[in-house]
Amino acid sequence: MTRVLKRSQRRLLSAFRQLLNEKEYYDIRVAEIISLADVGKTTFYRHYERKLDLFIEMHREIFDTMLQELVCRDDWLSKEPRPMLIAVAMKAVSKTGGRRSIAYKLGSDWPHAQRQLSENLTATINRQLGTAFSGAKWTTNQEQLAGALAALYMDFLIRLNSAANEKAALISARSLQCFSRAMVLAALEEASGDAACPTY
Amino acid sequence: MTRVLKRSQRRLLSAFRQLLNEKEYYDIRVAEIISLADVGKTTFYRHYERKLDLFIEMHREIFDTMLQELVCRDDWLSKEPRPMLIAVAMKAVSKTGGRRSIAYKLGSDWPHAQRQLSENLTATINRQLGTAFSGAKWTTNQEQLAGALAALYMDFLIRLNSAANEKAALISARSLQCFSRAMVLAALEEASGDAACPTY
Repeated sequence: MTRVLKRSQRRLLSAFRQLLNEKEYYDIRVAEIISLADVGKTTFYRHYERKLDLFIEMHREIFDTMLQELVCRDDWLSKEPRPMLIAVAMKAVSKTGGRRSIAYKLGSDWPHAQRQLSENLTATINRQLGTAFSGAKWTTNQEQLAGALAALYMDFLIRLNSAANEKAALISARSLQCFSRAMVLAALEEASGDAACPTY
Repeated sequence: MTRVLKRSQRRLLSAFRQLLNEKEYYDIRVAEIISLADVGKTTFYRHYERKLDLFIEMHREIFDTMLQELVCRDDWLSKEPRPMLIAVAMKAVSKTGGRRSIAYKLGSDWPHAQRQLSENLTATINRQLGTAFSGAKWTTNQEQLAGALAALYMDFLIRLNSAANEKAALISARSLQCFSRAMVLAALEEASGDAACPTY
Protein backbone atom coordinates (compact mmCIF):
# COMPACT_ATOMS: atom_id res chain seq x y z
CA MET A 1 0.00 0.00 0.00
CA THR A 2 2.95 2.34 0.44
CA ARG A 3 3.56 4.80 -2.38
CA VAL A 4 6.81 4.09 -4.13
CA LEU A 5 9.05 7.12 -3.83
CA LYS A 6 11.93 8.00 -6.11
CA ARG A 7 15.41 8.14 -4.64
CA SER A 8 15.45 11.94 -4.81
CA GLN A 9 12.15 12.08 -2.96
CA ARG A 10 13.59 9.88 -0.22
CA ARG A 11 16.54 12.24 0.09
CA LEU A 12 14.26 15.28 0.28
CA LEU A 13 12.07 13.64 2.90
CA SER A 14 15.04 12.63 4.96
CA ALA A 15 16.55 16.12 4.79
CA PHE A 16 13.19 17.62 5.74
CA ARG A 17 12.91 15.29 8.75
CA GLN A 18 16.41 16.18 9.85
CA LEU A 19 15.66 19.91 9.63
CA LEU A 20 12.44 19.43 11.61
CA ASN A 21 14.53 18.02 14.43
CA GLU A 22 16.61 21.17 14.44
CA LYS A 23 14.10 23.93 13.93
CA GLU A 24 10.44 24.79 13.59
CA TYR A 25 8.51 23.98 10.42
CA TYR A 26 7.95 27.62 9.76
CA ASP A 27 11.64 28.49 9.84
CA ILE A 28 12.62 25.87 7.27
CA ARG A 29 13.17 27.14 3.73
CA VAL A 30 12.90 25.02 0.59
CA ALA A 31 16.45 26.08 -0.33
CA GLU A 32 17.76 24.47 2.86
CA ILE A 33 15.96 21.22 2.19
CA ILE A 34 17.32 21.09 -1.35
CA SER A 35 20.82 21.86 -0.19
CA LEU A 36 20.82 19.29 2.60
CA ALA A 37 19.28 16.65 0.34
CA ASP A 38 21.82 17.48 -2.32
CA VAL A 39 19.27 17.44 -5.15
CA GLY A 40 18.56 20.09 -7.75
CA LYS A 41 15.89 22.73 -7.40
CA THR A 42 14.22 21.41 -10.55
CA THR A 43 14.05 17.97 -8.99
CA PHE A 44 12.30 19.37 -5.94
CA TYR A 45 9.72 21.18 -8.00
CA ARG A 46 9.17 18.17 -10.22
CA HIS A 47 7.80 16.32 -7.20
CA TYR A 48 6.48 19.03 -4.92
CA GLU A 49 4.99 22.47 -5.18
CA ARG A 50 6.02 23.64 -1.76
CA LYS A 51 7.36 22.70 1.64
CA LEU A 52 3.89 21.77 2.85
CA ASP A 53 3.78 18.94 0.30
CA LEU A 54 6.78 17.34 1.98
CA PHE A 55 5.05 17.62 5.32
CA ILE A 56 2.04 15.85 3.86
CA GLU A 57 4.22 13.20 2.21
CA MET A 58 5.92 12.58 5.54
CA HIS A 59 2.55 12.05 7.18
CA ARG A 60 1.41 9.74 4.42
CA GLU A 61 4.21 7.45 5.59
CA ILE A 62 3.29 7.89 9.22
CA PHE A 63 -0.32 6.94 8.43
CA ASP A 64 0.79 3.89 6.45
CA THR A 65 3.04 2.78 9.29
CA MET A 66 0.45 3.39 11.94
CA LEU A 67 -2.25 1.44 10.09
CA GLN A 68 -0.18 -1.27 8.42
CA GLU A 69 -1.04 -3.87 11.02
CA LEU A 70 -4.77 -3.41 10.62
CA VAL A 71 -4.99 -6.00 7.88
CA CYS A 72 -7.77 -8.36 8.86
CA ARG A 73 -11.00 -8.26 10.84
CA ASP A 74 -9.38 -9.47 14.03
CA ASP A 75 -6.89 -6.61 13.91
CA TRP A 76 -9.69 -4.05 13.84
CA LEU A 77 -11.74 -5.92 16.41
CA SER A 78 -8.91 -6.60 18.83
CA LYS A 79 -9.32 -5.06 22.26
CA GLU A 80 -5.64 -4.20 22.34
CA PRO A 81 -3.87 -1.77 20.02
CA ARG A 82 -1.46 -3.15 17.42
CA PRO A 83 2.23 -2.88 18.41
CA MET A 84 2.87 -0.43 15.56
CA LEU A 85 0.29 2.01 16.89
CA ILE A 86 2.01 1.92 20.27
CA ALA A 87 5.38 2.38 18.56
CA VAL A 88 4.13 5.48 16.72
CA ALA A 89 2.77 6.87 19.99
CA MET A 90 6.03 6.23 21.85
CA LYS A 91 8.10 7.81 19.11
CA ALA A 92 5.91 10.91 19.04
CA VAL A 93 6.22 11.38 22.78
CA SER A 94 10.00 11.01 22.71
CA LYS A 95 10.37 13.81 20.15
CA THR A 96 11.76 16.96 21.63
CA GLY A 97 9.54 19.13 19.49
CA GLY A 98 8.34 21.45 22.20
CA ARG A 99 4.78 21.43 23.34
CA ARG A 100 3.16 23.79 20.88
CA SER A 101 0.36 22.29 18.87
CA ILE A 102 0.82 21.25 15.28
CA ALA A 103 -1.72 23.92 14.30
CA TYR A 104 0.45 26.69 15.72
CA LYS A 105 3.61 25.22 14.26
CA LEU A 106 2.15 25.18 10.77
CA GLY A 107 0.55 28.60 11.02
CA SER A 108 -1.13 29.65 7.80
CA ASP A 109 -0.28 26.28 6.20
CA TRP A 110 -2.46 24.51 8.76
CA PRO A 111 -5.93 24.84 7.16
CA HIS A 112 -4.68 23.28 3.94
CA ALA A 113 -2.55 20.70 5.77
CA GLN A 114 -5.41 19.68 8.01
CA ARG A 115 -7.76 19.05 5.13
CA GLN A 116 -5.16 17.17 3.14
CA LEU A 117 -4.03 15.06 6.09
CA SER A 118 -7.59 14.26 6.98
CA GLU A 119 -8.40 13.23 3.40
CA ASN A 120 -5.29 11.04 3.18
CA LEU A 121 -5.99 9.42 6.51
CA THR A 122 -9.60 8.74 5.52
CA ALA A 123 -8.43 7.19 2.23
CA THR A 124 -5.85 4.97 3.96
CA ILE A 125 -8.35 3.81 6.57
CA ASN A 126 -10.97 3.23 3.91
CA ARG A 127 -8.53 1.06 1.95
CA GLN A 128 -7.55 -0.95 5.02
CA LEU A 129 -11.20 -1.43 5.98
CA GLY A 130 -11.94 -2.56 2.43
CA THR A 131 -9.27 -5.24 2.64
CA ALA A 132 -10.10 -6.39 6.15
CA PHE A 133 -13.87 -6.43 5.68
CA SER A 134 -14.15 -7.32 2.04
CA GLY A 135 -17.75 -8.34 1.39
CA ALA A 136 -19.00 -7.10 4.77
CA LYS A 137 -22.32 -5.32 5.00
CA TRP A 138 -22.24 -1.98 6.79
CA THR A 139 -25.15 -0.20 8.47
CA THR A 140 -23.62 3.09 7.42
CA ASN A 141 -21.51 3.45 4.32
CA GLN A 142 -17.89 2.44 4.64
CA GLU A 143 -16.56 5.89 3.79
CA GLN A 144 -18.62 7.49 6.53
CA LEU A 145 -17.07 5.01 8.95
CA ALA A 146 -13.59 5.70 7.55
CA GLY A 147 -14.14 9.45 7.95
CA ALA A 148 -15.23 9.10 11.57
CA LEU A 149 -12.28 6.81 12.35
CA ALA A 150 -9.95 9.31 10.67
CA ALA A 151 -11.30 12.04 12.98
CA LEU A 152 -10.41 9.89 15.99
CA TYR A 153 -6.95 9.05 14.65
CA MET A 154 -6.24 12.71 13.83
CA ASP A 155 -7.31 13.72 17.31
CA PHE A 156 -5.05 11.02 18.71
CA LEU A 157 -2.06 12.28 16.71
CA ILE A 158 -2.70 15.91 17.60
CA ARG A 159 -3.00 15.11 21.30
CA LEU A 160 0.16 12.97 21.24
CA ASN A 161 2.03 16.18 20.62
CA SER A 162 1.08 17.35 24.10
CA ALA A 163 1.02 13.98 25.85
CA ALA A 164 2.79 14.31 29.19
CA ASN A 165 4.65 11.01 29.06
CA GLU A 166 4.78 7.47 27.69
CA LYS A 167 2.10 6.25 30.06
CA ALA A 168 -0.36 8.90 28.89
CA ALA A 169 0.45 8.05 25.25
CA LEU A 170 -0.14 4.36 25.91
CA ILE A 171 -3.52 5.08 27.50
CA SER A 172 -4.45 7.16 24.45
CA ALA A 173 -3.46 4.35 22.08
CA ARG A 174 -5.54 1.89 24.04
CA SER A 175 -8.56 4.18 24.10
CA LEU A 176 -8.20 4.74 20.38
CA GLN A 177 -8.27 1.01 19.67
CA CYS A 178 -11.15 0.51 22.08
CA PHE A 179 -13.22 3.24 20.47
CA SER A 180 -12.43 2.35 16.89
CA ARG A 181 -13.25 -1.28 17.60
CA ALA A 182 -16.62 -0.17 19.03
CA MET A 183 -17.33 1.97 15.97
CA VAL A 184 -16.48 -0.79 13.52
CA LEU A 185 -18.70 -3.21 15.43
CA ALA A 186 -21.54 -0.69 15.43
CA ALA A 187 -21.18 -0.24 11.69
CA LEU A 188 -21.20 -3.97 10.97
CA GLU A 189 -24.68 -5.11 10.11
CA GLU A 190 -23.95 -8.64 11.18
CA ALA A 191 -22.79 -7.56 14.64
CA SER A 192 -24.75 -9.28 17.33
CA GLY A 193 -27.98 -7.62 18.37
CA ASP A 194 -27.54 -4.56 20.45
CA ALA A 195 -24.11 -3.56 19.17
CA ALA A 196 -25.23 -2.81 15.63
CA CYS A 197 -26.89 0.42 14.60
CA PRO A 198 -30.09 0.58 12.58
CA THR A 199 -29.58 0.38 8.83
CA TYR A 200 -30.71 3.40 6.84
CA MET B 1 -25.79 24.70 31.83
CA THR B 2 -25.94 27.74 29.54
CA ARG B 3 -23.70 30.66 30.48
CA VAL B 4 -25.73 33.66 31.42
CA LEU B 5 -24.88 36.49 29.06
CA LYS B 6 -25.35 40.17 29.74
CA ARG B 7 -27.75 42.11 27.55
CA SER B 8 -24.89 43.88 25.80
CA GLN B 9 -23.28 40.51 25.03
CA ARG B 10 -26.54 39.29 23.50
CA ARG B 11 -26.64 42.38 21.30
CA LEU B 12 -23.03 41.87 20.22
CA LEU B 13 -23.64 38.22 19.43
CA SER B 14 -26.74 38.98 17.48
CA ALA B 15 -24.97 41.70 15.48
CA PHE B 16 -22.07 39.34 14.80
CA ARG B 17 -24.45 36.63 13.58
CA GLN B 18 -26.18 39.08 11.30
CA LEU B 19 -22.87 40.23 9.80
CA LEU B 20 -21.80 36.62 9.27
CA ASN B 21 -24.88 36.17 7.10
CA GLU B 22 -23.78 39.08 4.95
CA LYS B 23 -20.03 38.63 4.66
CA GLU B 24 -17.08 36.41 5.48
CA TYR B 25 -15.68 36.21 8.99
CA TYR B 26 -12.44 37.68 7.85
CA ASP B 27 -14.04 40.79 6.40
CA ILE B 28 -15.91 41.69 9.56
CA ARG B 29 -14.37 44.41 11.71
CA VAL B 30 -14.95 44.87 15.44
CA ALA B 31 -16.05 48.46 14.73
CA GLU B 32 -18.91 47.17 12.57
CA ILE B 33 -20.09 44.76 15.22
CA ILE B 34 -20.07 47.49 17.84
CA SER B 35 -21.91 49.88 15.60
CA LEU B 36 -24.58 47.37 14.57
CA ALA B 37 -25.03 46.20 18.18
CA ASP B 38 -25.23 49.82 19.30
CA VAL B 39 -22.98 49.28 22.31
CA GLY B 40 -19.88 51.17 23.33
CA LYS B 41 -16.37 50.13 22.42
CA THR B 42 -15.52 49.88 26.11
CA THR B 43 -18.41 47.48 26.57
CA PHE B 44 -17.10 45.24 23.80
CA TYR B 45 -13.64 45.11 25.27
CA ARG B 46 -14.97 44.50 28.76
CA HIS B 47 -16.36 41.18 27.54
CA TYR B 48 -14.12 40.22 24.64
CA GLU B 49 -10.57 40.70 23.54
CA ARG B 50 -11.21 40.30 19.84
CA LYS B 51 -13.64 39.19 17.16
CA LEU B 52 -12.56 35.56 17.53
CA ASP B 53 -13.93 35.53 21.10
CA LEU B 54 -17.40 36.27 19.73
CA PHE B 55 -17.04 33.42 17.28
CA ILE B 56 -16.15 31.14 20.16
CA GLU B 57 -19.01 32.47 22.28
CA MET B 58 -21.40 31.81 19.41
CA HIS B 59 -20.20 28.22 19.19
CA ARG B 60 -20.50 27.75 22.92
CA GLU B 61 -24.23 28.30 22.39
CA ILE B 62 -24.31 25.97 19.40
CA PHE B 63 -22.62 23.24 21.45
CA ASP B 64 -25.06 23.75 24.35
CA THR B 65 -28.01 23.55 21.97
CA MET B 66 -26.68 20.53 20.15
CA LEU B 67 -26.04 18.60 23.37
CA GLN B 68 -28.87 19.83 25.58
CA GLU B 69 -30.99 16.77 24.96
CA LEU B 70 -28.27 14.36 26.04
CA VAL B 71 -29.36 14.48 29.65
CA CYS B 72 -29.73 10.89 30.77
CA ARG B 73 -28.24 7.49 29.93
CA ASP B 74 -30.97 6.58 27.49
CA ASP B 75 -30.29 9.75 25.50
CA TRP B 76 -26.64 8.78 25.01
CA LEU B 77 -27.49 5.14 24.37
CA SER B 78 -30.35 5.76 21.97
CA LYS B 79 -29.85 4.40 18.47
CA GLU B 80 -31.46 7.51 17.02
CA PRO B 81 -30.08 11.04 17.24
CA ARG B 82 -31.90 13.56 19.44
CA PRO B 83 -34.18 15.94 17.50
CA MET B 84 -31.99 18.90 18.46
CA LEU B 85 -28.94 17.35 16.80
CA ILE B 86 -30.94 16.90 13.63
CA ALA B 87 -32.18 20.49 13.92
CA VAL B 88 -28.61 21.80 14.21
CA ALA B 89 -27.61 19.73 11.17
CA MET B 90 -30.54 20.99 9.09
CA LYS B 91 -29.89 24.59 10.04
CA ALA B 92 -26.21 24.31 9.12
CA VAL B 93 -27.05 22.88 5.69
CA SER B 94 -29.59 25.60 4.96
CA LYS B 95 -27.00 28.34 5.56
CA THR B 96 -25.90 30.01 2.39
CA GLY B 97 -22.38 30.38 3.69
CA GLY B 98 -20.62 29.09 0.63
CA ARG B 99 -18.76 25.83 0.62
CA ARG B 100 -15.35 26.87 1.86
CA SER B 101 -14.25 25.13 5.00
CA ILE B 102 -14.37 26.82 8.36
CA ALA B 103 -10.56 26.54 8.52
CA TYR B 104 -10.17 28.67 5.38
CA LYS B 105 -12.80 31.13 6.50
CA LEU B 106 -11.02 31.76 9.78
CA GLY B 107 -7.56 31.90 8.27
CA SER B 108 -4.89 32.70 10.83
CA ASP B 109 -7.51 32.70 13.62
CA TRP B 110 -8.21 29.01 12.96
CA PRO B 111 -5.46 27.35 15.01
CA HIS B 112 -6.51 29.21 18.14
CA ALA B 113 -10.22 28.80 17.35
CA GLN B 114 -9.86 25.09 16.77
CA ARG B 115 -8.15 24.51 20.08
CA GLN B 116 -10.62 26.65 21.98
CA LEU B 117 -13.67 25.10 20.31
CA SER B 118 -12.35 21.64 20.91
CA GLU B 119 -11.69 22.39 24.59
CA ASN B 120 -15.15 23.90 25.05
CA LEU B 121 -16.82 21.01 23.30
CA THR B 122 -14.89 18.50 25.41
CA ALA B 123 -15.89 20.37 28.58
CA THR B 124 -19.57 20.48 27.59
CA ILE B 125 -19.63 16.79 26.68
CA ASN B 126 -17.78 15.92 29.87
CA ARG B 127 -20.36 17.81 31.93
CA GLN B 128 -23.28 16.14 30.15
CA LEU B 129 -21.69 12.70 30.56
CA GLY B 130 -21.15 13.44 34.24
CA THR B 131 -24.83 14.20 34.72
CA ALA B 132 -26.12 11.32 32.62
CA PHE B 133 -23.75 8.71 34.02
CA SER B 134 -23.28 9.94 37.54
CA GLY B 135 -21.69 7.13 39.53
CA ALA B 136 -20.92 5.02 36.46
CA LYS B 137 -17.62 3.16 36.23
CA TRP B 138 -15.62 3.78 33.08
CA THR B 139 -12.98 1.52 31.57
CA THR B 140 -11.15 4.60 30.38
CA ASN B 141 -11.33 7.90 32.19
CA GLN B 142 -14.39 10.02 31.48
CA GLU B 143 -12.37 12.91 30.12
CA GLN B 144 -10.64 10.69 27.59
CA LEU B 145 -14.08 9.58 26.41
CA ALA B 146 -15.30 13.18 26.32
CA GLY B 147 -12.26 14.18 24.25
CA ALA B 148 -12.81 11.40 21.73
CA LEU B 149 -16.52 12.23 21.46
CA ALA B 150 -15.60 15.89 20.98
CA ALA B 151 -13.36 14.90 18.06
CA LEU B 152 -16.31 13.14 16.41
CA TYR B 153 -18.67 16.05 17.03
CA MET B 154 -16.14 18.57 15.69
CA ASP B 155 -15.64 16.46 12.60
CA PHE B 156 -19.41 16.28 12.19
CA LEU B 157 -19.76 20.07 12.42
CA ILE B 158 -16.87 20.71 10.04
CA ARG B 159 -18.27 18.28 7.48
CA LEU B 160 -21.76 19.77 7.75
CA ASN B 161 -20.32 22.85 6.17
CA SER B 162 -19.80 20.91 2.96
CA ALA B 163 -22.75 18.53 3.24
CA ALA B 164 -24.46 18.34 -0.13
CA ASN B 165 -28.02 18.38 1.13
CA GLU B 166 -30.40 17.64 4.00
CA LYS B 167 -30.31 13.93 3.37
CA ALA B 168 -26.51 13.80 3.66
CA ALA B 169 -26.69 15.86 6.85
CA LEU B 170 -29.29 13.50 8.32
CA ILE B 171 -27.13 10.48 7.54
CA SER B 172 -24.19 12.20 9.26
CA ALA B 173 -26.27 12.94 12.35
CA ARG B 174 -27.38 9.32 12.52
CA SER B 175 -23.85 8.01 12.12
CA LEU B 176 -22.66 10.40 14.81
CA GLN B 177 -25.24 9.10 17.28
CA CYS B 178 -24.52 5.51 16.28
CA PHE B 179 -20.77 5.92 16.80
CA SER B 180 -20.98 7.93 20.00
CA ARG B 181 -23.40 5.39 21.44
CA ALA B 182 -20.90 2.64 20.61
CA MET B 183 -18.04 4.55 22.23
CA VAL B 184 -20.00 5.23 25.42
CA LEU B 185 -20.98 1.56 25.65
CA ALA B 186 -17.36 0.51 25.12
CA ALA B 187 -16.25 2.85 27.89
CA LEU B 188 -18.84 1.59 30.37
CA GLU B 189 -17.36 -1.07 32.56
CA GLU B 190 -20.73 -2.61 33.28
CA ALA B 191 -21.54 -2.99 29.57
CA SER B 192 -22.37 -6.56 28.73
CA GLY B 193 -19.45 -8.81 27.89
CA ASP B 194 -17.97 -8.16 24.53
CA ALA B 195 -18.97 -4.52 24.20
CA ALA B 196 -16.77 -3.25 27.02
CA CYS B 197 -13.08 -2.61 26.69
CA PRO B 198 -10.50 -3.94 29.12
CA THR B 199 -9.96 -1.75 32.17
CA TYR B 200 -6.47 -0.35 32.62
